[in-house]
Amino acid sequence: MFPKNVFLLVAGLLIALPVLARDPAPLRGSVVDERFMSTVLRDNRIGLNPERAIKVLLPPGYAKSKRRYPVVYFLHNAWYGPKQMIEDGRAQRLIERAFADGVVQEFIFVVADYTGPTTGSLYENSPVSGRWIDYTVDEVVPFIDAKYRTLARRESRAVVGDFFGGRGALNLAMVKAEVFSVAYAMHPVATGAGDIPWSSLEVDWPRMHAAKTYAELGGLGRTQIFWAIHQAFAPNVAAAPCFCDFYTEMKDGKAAYNPDRALAMQKSFLLDESLMESAAALRTLRGLALDWGRFDTTQAHVISNRQFSRKLEDLGIEHEAEEYRGDPWNRTWTEDGRFAERVLPFLRKHLATAE
Amino acid sequence: MFPKNVFLLVAGLLIALPVLARDPAPLRGSVVDERFMSTVLRDNRIGLNPERAIKVLLPPGYAKSKRRYPVVYFLHNAWYGPKQMIEDGRAQRLIERAFADGVVQEFIFVVADYTGPTTGSLYENSPVSGRWIDYTVDEVVPFIDAKYRTLARRESRAVVGDFFGGRGALNLAMVKAEVFSVAYAMHPVATGAGDIPWSSLEVDWPRMHAAKTYAELGGLGRTQIFWAIHQAFAPNVAAAPCFCDFYTEMKDGKAAYNPDRALAMQKSFLLDESLMESAAALRTLRGLALDWGRFDTTQAHVISNRQFSRKLEDLGIEHEAEEYRGDPWNRTWTEDGRFAERVLPFLRKHLATAE
Amino acid sequence: MFPKNVFLLVAGLLIALPVLARDPAPLRGSVVDERFMSTVLRDNRIGLNPERAIKVLLPPGYAKSKRRYPVVYFLHNAWYGPKQMIEDGRAQRLIERAFADGVVQEFIFVVADYTGPTTGSLYENSPVSGRWIDYTVDEVVPFIDAKYRTLARRESRAVVGDFFGGRGALNLAMVKAEVFSVAYAMHPVATGAGDIPWSSLEVDWPRMHAAKTYAELGGLGRTQIFWAIHQAFAPNVAAAPCFCDFYTEMKDGKAAYNPDRALAMQKSFLLDESLMESAAALRTLRGLALDWGRFDTTQAHVISNRQFSRKLEDLGIEHEAEEYRGDPWNRTWTEDGRFAERVLPFLRKHLATAE
Amino acid sequence: MFPKNVFLLVAGLLIALPVLARDPAPLRGSVVDERFMSTVLRDNRIGLNPERAIKVLLPPGYAKSKRRYPVVYFLHNAWYGPKQMIEDGRAQRLIERAFADGVVQEFIFVVADYTGPTTGSLYENSPVSGRWIDYTVDEVVPFIDAKYRTLARRESRAVVGDFFGGRGALNLAMVKAEVFSVAYAMHPVATGAGDIPWSSLEVDWPRMHAAKTYAELGGLGRTQIFWAIHQAFAPNVAAAPCFCDFYTEMKDGKAAYNPDRALAMQKSFLLDESLMESAAALRTLRGLALDWGRFDTTQAHVISNRQFSRKLEDLGIEHEAEEYRGDPWNRTWTEDGRFAERVLPFLRKHLATAE
Repeated sequence: MFPKNVFLLVAGLLIALPVLARDPAPLRGSVVDERFMSTVLRDNRIGLNPERAIKVLLPPGYAKSKRRYPVVYFLHNAWYGPKQMIEDGRAQRLIERAFADGVVQEFIFVVADYTGPTTGSLYENSPVSGRWIDYTVDEVVPFIDAKYRTLARRESRAVVGDFFGGRGALNLAMVKAEVFSVAYAMHPVATGAGDIPWSSLEVDWPRMHAAKTYAELGGLGRTQIFWAIHQAFAPNVAAAPCFCDFYTEMKDGKAAYNPDRALAMQKSFLLDESLMESAAALRTLRGLALDWGRFDTTQAHVISNRQFSRKLEDLGIEHEAEEYRGDPWNRTWTEDGRFAERVLPFLRKHLATAE
Repeated sequence: MFPKNVFLLVAGLLIALPVLARDPAPLRGSVVDERFMSTVLRDNRIGLNPERAIKVLLPPGYAKSKRRYPVVYFLHNAWYGPKQMIEDGRAQRLIERAFADGVVQEFIFVVADYTGPTTGSLYENSPVSGRWIDYTVDEVVPFIDAKYRTLARRESRAVVGDFFGGRGALNLAMVKAEVFSVAYAMHPVATGAGDIPWSSLEVDWPRMHAAKTYAELGGLGRTQIFWAIHQAFAPNVAAAPCFCDFYTEMKDGKAAYNPDRALAMQKSFLLDESLMESAAALRTLRGLALDWGRFDTTQAHVISNRQFSRKLEDLGIEHEAEEYRGDPWNRTWTEDGRFAERVLPFLRKHLATAE
Repeated sequence: MFPKNVFLLVAGLLIALPVLARDPAPLRGSVVDERFMSTVLRDNRIGLNPERAIKVLLPPGYAKSKRRYPVVYFLHNAWYGPKQMIEDGRAQRLIERAFADGVVQEFIFVVADYTGPTTGSLYENSPVSGRWIDYTVDEVVPFIDAKYRTLARRESRAVVGDFFGGRGALNLAMVKAEVFSVAYAMHPVATGAGDIPWSSLEVDWPRMHAAKTYAELGGLGRTQIFWAIHQAFAPNVAAAPCFCDFYTEMKDGKAAYNPDRALAMQKSFLLDESLMESAAALRTLRGLALDWGRFDTTQAHVISNRQFSRKLEDLGIEHEAEEYRGDPWNRTWTEDGRFAERVLPFLRKHLATAE
Repeated sequence: MFPKNVFLLVAGLLIALPVLARDPAPLRGSVVDERFMSTVLRDNRIGLNPERAIKVLLPPGYAKSKRRYPVVYFLHNAWYGPKQMIEDGRAQRLIERAFADGVVQEFIFVVADYTGPTTGSLYENSPVSGRWIDYTVDEVVPFIDAKYRTLARRESRAVVGDFFGGRGALNLAMVKAEVFSVAYAMHPVATGAGDIPWSSLEVDWPRMHAAKTYAELGGLGRTQIFWAIHQAFAPNVAAAPCFCDFYTEMKDGKAAYNPDRALAMQKSFLLDESLMESAAALRTLRGLALDWGRFDTTQAHVISNRQFSRKLEDLGIEHEAEEYRGDPWNRTWTEDGRFAERVLPFLRKHLATAE
């Protein structure tokens, strides 16, 4: 028998630890470098390398225990990858600190490889730029479950992503809720159309239509990104060289807006367009959150996220949706940033631990 | 003696008349009071009077000419009616001034009767609150075309409305573009969901659910209006006393949000929800405009109209969409207000005159 | 000697407590009912009762220890008071839970009395409605410091408030940073002008100007509140019966806007108007935060808070500013609400404990 | 033969001419190329050429009449100049069409030269980039009044500008209302701070601080523009090579935000910061308008203009403020665009013609 007041007494001794002191040197976990050959990703038109790197961060207790652990899949932003995510050390340090402080239970942290020769995977299934949803769900998750002591069920699987990866995390929650039950999207993009019609977006259409390759559009910012976005969300394997249906057509040297194409692409690209169909799935989640920095210079991201949250509310879907002081970059990975103070405590509340 | 028509002749010589001088006493038109019995409106559950008043303003030249004229149908706001619309004199004065100044060609101005025992018609077909679209298209328009020398075709028919009537004008453009080819919505409402989810709207649900009649909700502002809105957009003839499906249900004295009902009602009530289906019809219009005052204290109206315009743009639908300094009331009917300076010139540009 | 790895081992045993289990019955603190006679508040024109109630919540450890404690002053919203704040039990329960879980160090929680015969104090110095800043700083704080074992210095004094009290908390941080070093404003109002000009605010001016008393304006919502706001922010002891300078004047039965008066009142009422002068003081704070619910039906509050945060950022003032899913009421006092999950951890980080 | 003036005479008879027919070939005015040496502009640090081009468009009636005419000064956007403004033909065509149709009385249209080796003048007095306000008021206006039959008084002088020139037009109205009594700002920028704090603006500070010349920053968009903006609004003749005080400082290779400098520069750059001081002057104007396209991808322009209008309203300053469907470029110079349908009729209403 373990009487309550004794328990409290003991607990009381230490419970104040997070307040009074913090372990100056948290226990380290270990990082495993995995590689595997994807079958799914062979099917693409942009020269994807099917050999994929995966970084797996095992928690400090993993080596000596026989327990099974929940798994958090992290979707890195475009222009980043698993190597940097781990090697810049920030994520690992914050996670290990949180384990040590009792902020969150131990979990396995997986950063699979969503890089490619263009703007990264965009986390979508496309016959042109790769079937990244299938890659994640049919290849990466089974690979991890087979090789590590995971709690191999949705209740113990979370997906977390940043910026484009944030969109990816929401999307996986929407279409693969049978695989993941917890999702946290950090500053997701493309959740809605924002305030600018697509006919007024700053895209250099003459250059876009004239380009033979993604690389040619280097330095053109949104124009280049939209090449990749078209490949992911308006693919057409018959339409070389981009293998996509641009939502404008060149007529007499001028770009003519094609609303049917634009709308078809928006339907695929903008997450709010398919919220209704995903509502039932989203209601089964254990935890759903998005957050975003108010000071994104592309205010369309901010406005879209506000509206996305309102739509979730109208659909009766439980979620958190915080807009914070900061831009998409400056409050994410600091000691008191969003990952440490919002994402990790969120995982504690929603990710199932017990076997 | 200086007869008016002589003055006009002389003034006409100058062409710069609009700049240098204005006719101090424009020719008056004449107002005809019509009444007729609606068959369509007998079908309702709220005690509509099927006898309907219509005010018809004939242009100054009508009596002496044999010409046929274009017709502008005006949809008054809730809490107003044809009697006030004409008797307060503002609309008539501005129209006759514009005829005199050559701002717009002569037309017949029709204000039919959309009043009722609740918040007015809301300009929608409902088995509970009346089939007002059918009333307009199947009864009022044929009645006018039969009785007056009209140009009885869509090219010469415009619909203009204010606030709730603005929503009505947009809606007729969306679903009855074969009848009207020009639409101007002045400060329309319910074009979109705005920024507040329906679960947070300031509605007194316990009072709503307890009420036996619309009248009981007097003084409760939005709560009372939402009784009528439910009757129009979530009708259920089997569900007395409101004959509607409220989007909340009372459980243990508290209002529980029902997302399925809310979404079904939004689909019907919020015009942007059916824009996609109406796109082809809207592209056939000769003229489409909406405007709104920035200083509406219900900013959801403002935000929704901004988004509505963006969606029209994305759909490739030609239109005007001006947001002006003012609230929904203080810039509409003044000498230099929206009706005089925006609506009437818009009609000149888009409404077909020639027989 | 206490070797680190042993410590860690022991810590490790329990550190996961917040994750795995929570004390089902946290230790209770005790509530003391204080009363005192205010001298400051005798000076008013609205019949304030100078006898004031104060609720003091002592932490569980207070009775048996000899320690001195930091103090958190809570500014209740208008239409509320210290009695309800404690007797509804929510605040106390959440605080004691947080003490038990180690979420925050023990502190003394003080709810002084800001009620009055109108809309409450509005937390401002006014010769008409009372000098509430002076009352707080010159009377309440010394009273508490004299009677309880407090850490009687700014580093250990926080001010937290809700809605109007949120404005009050920000204001005290701005003008009394020598007394308080930590401030958290929950959904503050009147931080800026928002989106609607004061000439378009829904105020019933004829009724306002005709009223002899605050009570007469009952049921008129903003109109009544603006009576009290004028008394606090545009006081004029010579101008009975309101003792204020309304920012409109009645002319021929119509309200004429007086921009000079409106601007003078905005300068006093809207916190962003004096941010510049307060910047140096605000930079000395140990912690400053505001948050607000996105779904406030008065979107001016939301927009103003966004802008207020941007201005703080431009002034180089460190702060947190989160906009959350929710309206001003539905996410504040729940188990996982803003007070429990945001305010209390914020106090832990910024409020100095050590003597 | 059917001489044009006879045609006009006959057309004039009909008064409905603007409705039924438009003169297919409006009378042409004439363009005069002026050059003069500025004294004011010699005082600068960026190599301004003091020899300035001015394009003067005389109305069709000028040559044969002895009348004096009102004058409209047009402030071209950055990256443009008087030569293009006239030679692209759009402005002239729209003006002559409006003269012919009686949309506006005849006036002299002056496009002075605000170009320079950087981003143009920005229409401000600066010891570094030139005293452009003085140039306009003390040199250009007297030059025109001396050489042409003008109505040389404020009542008959308007200033109209586009984008940066729109800001210039507002600014001249604010600080030189004794010279101009009518102002129309087309899509003005820098009217307020918008939604993004200056610490989050996308400026490449390391490149900025490292640059020796404006030209070096070519291709860097906002970074390059901010070089010029600093020269105009944060000038410091002692601080080569930019001769300005940047609002960041480089520390350890990173840009540190300096709030005092940022705020000083905002005070000078953002027009709303000095609105209060200009209120009395603005109230003397005969006409004041700004408009802007909703779909500017820099939404800060849009948001600032909305707020600017609200502030004008709070200050009791009469004005128009329309937000239209369009981006800053696509609705300005078309046949049915803002210049033709909004600016020119606005001039008719407010610019005094009679001698």
